[in-house]
Amino acid sequence: MRTTGENAELALLLEVAGTPKPGNVDRHREYDDLRFEHFLAGAVGSQRGLRAAAKADGPPVGEAFERAVAGMSEQSGGNTQFGALLLVVPLARAAGRGTLAPEGVSAVVDSTTVTDAAGFYRAFEHVDVSVDDPPEDMDALDVRRGSDAVPELHARDLTLEAIMERSAAHDGVAREWVGGFERSFWTADRLSDLDGPVADRASRVFLEALAEEPDTFVAINHDETTAERVSERAAAVLEGDEDAETMADDLVERGVNPGTTADIVAAGLFIALERGLDV
Amino acid sequence: MRTTGENAELALLLEVAGTPKPGNVDRHREYDDLRFEHFLAGAVGSQRGLRAAAKADGPPVGEAFERAVAGMSEQSGGNTQFGALLLVVPLARAAGRGTLAPEGVSAVVDSTTVTDAAGFYRAFEHVDVSVDDPPEDMDALDVRRGSDAVPELHARDLTLEAIMERSAAHDGVAREWVGGFERSFWTADRLSDLDGPVADRASRVFLEALAEEPDTFVAINHDETTAERVSERAAAVLEGDEDAETMADDLVERGVNPGTTADIVAAGLFIALERGLDV
Repeated sequence: MRTTGENAELALLLEVAGTPKPGNVDRHREYDDLRFEHFLAGAVGSQRGLRAAAKADGPPVGEAFERAVAGMSEQSGGNTQFGALLLVVPLARAAGRGTLAPEGVSAVVDSTTVTDAAGFYRAFEHVDVSVDDPPEDMDALDVRRGSDAVPELHARDLTLEAIMERSAAHDGVAREWVGGFERSFWTADRLSDLDGPVADRASRVFLEALAEEPDTFVAINHDETTAERVSERAAAVLEGDEDAETMADDLVERGVNPGTTADIVAAGLFIALERGLDV
Repeated sequence: MRTTGENAELALLLEVAGTPKPGNVDRHREYDDLRFEHFLAGAVGSQRGLRAAAKADGPPVGEAFERAVAGMSEQSGGNTQFGALLLVVPLARAAGRGTLAPEGVSAVVDSTTVTDAAGFYRAFEHVDVSVDDPPEDMDALDVRRGSDAVPELHARDLTLEAIMERSAAHDGVAREWVGGFERSFWTADRLSDLDGPVADRASRVFLEALAEEPDTFVAINHDETTAERVSERAAAVLEGDEDAETMADDLVERGVNPGTTADIVAAGLFIALERGLDV
């Protein structure tokens, strides 16, 4: 049987294998400088951090996350799975504790400390991640400062949960952290309900999740209107009014990349695998 | 930096990502009952065995191989990477010893014992593998007997090297074992010499290796003539006289699967990654 750490890695691989997943790198589409093989290497590289995350008595989740990101970054494509790891790591810890449910992972979130926040900030030193500018009074806590922000975290006594609360308004991954991973669990349910190859289900559920809620990564890198328009198109695909492959080609061409939705699908795949989804 | 065990797993993933790889499952082609996602799960599942193989003082290579195959088999597609693991495991042991070269891996082969042979036989209990019928006097050593053959191995004092010597005439993986992994190292050199995405290089080198020598897996499952014809077509693709995608579609349709050549490409990818090939 696969271990929890192995299921976490496999979730990342199945996510990127699902096609079409409009705007994201998948088995059939890639960018010149961000390719399918970078995601394979990213998933393999993250495995040591994921194994640490999956241990009930492992290192703090912030440290496990930093280790996973450091390993993920050992390829030349840049950021491949930062957001996915940020979701999968606390879920893997909950699974390691035998409490993989909204309450269980919320307990993991609740128990984070300033040390976890410091691990999270250090993770940004391994790879460039697209983020929004912080509000003015938060400049000292800009994640792009990496470990330089750690003294400020201690000074303000900010846990990783507190950091996520501050970002939840504009970042869909942070919203999962503070909302019991609602969309991740919803995605897992959908993956189990559907039939057929797992990668095809991942593609379908990606479209459903995208139609349901505008992607915050698109909103950050482009704007809210673009994010809303992408969700409308996903809904049109589901209703048969637009072709998924056409939408995928168009988004890749424009560099519009609904990465947060992909992160949530990876998290849902991990939960579903842990619950026994067959591959 | 990726560990040797991680490079071994990544080699399996990059191999299956390369497309077109006529007749084999790749990123763009799969069979209904043997899909791309089965190879992802197979690679992830084999990682514990691969880590054991990569330890200089790890368990016997036959045991590490059995462990890798057991993990690989934890998916519903059946045999995905049996042959690739049979090549990568001794190479990983040589790498773990700091002797990843033809002499180093030959020393690993030379030092195998009956225990290694027993591990190899036990591995066949985890998954159905297409093999030739054994010669009449070898019936008691039919690999399909699995662990039932182990007493006979002991009675005849057969090491894993001796088993491979007996198969080298008709099996390209066994031939690597007893011939210093010549084609695996050649493949690694070619992968390093070429430019571009690693998965594209893997596809190219697959065609080159296939054109060079008929695939023994095709010969076993079909016949020698079919294997030779496939190699001629690969040569025609390289000369621009046939389209690789057309050849790939045709072979998949006919279920002609040059699996041994794919195994050798996986071995070559592992060697190249260990030598520092960037992904």
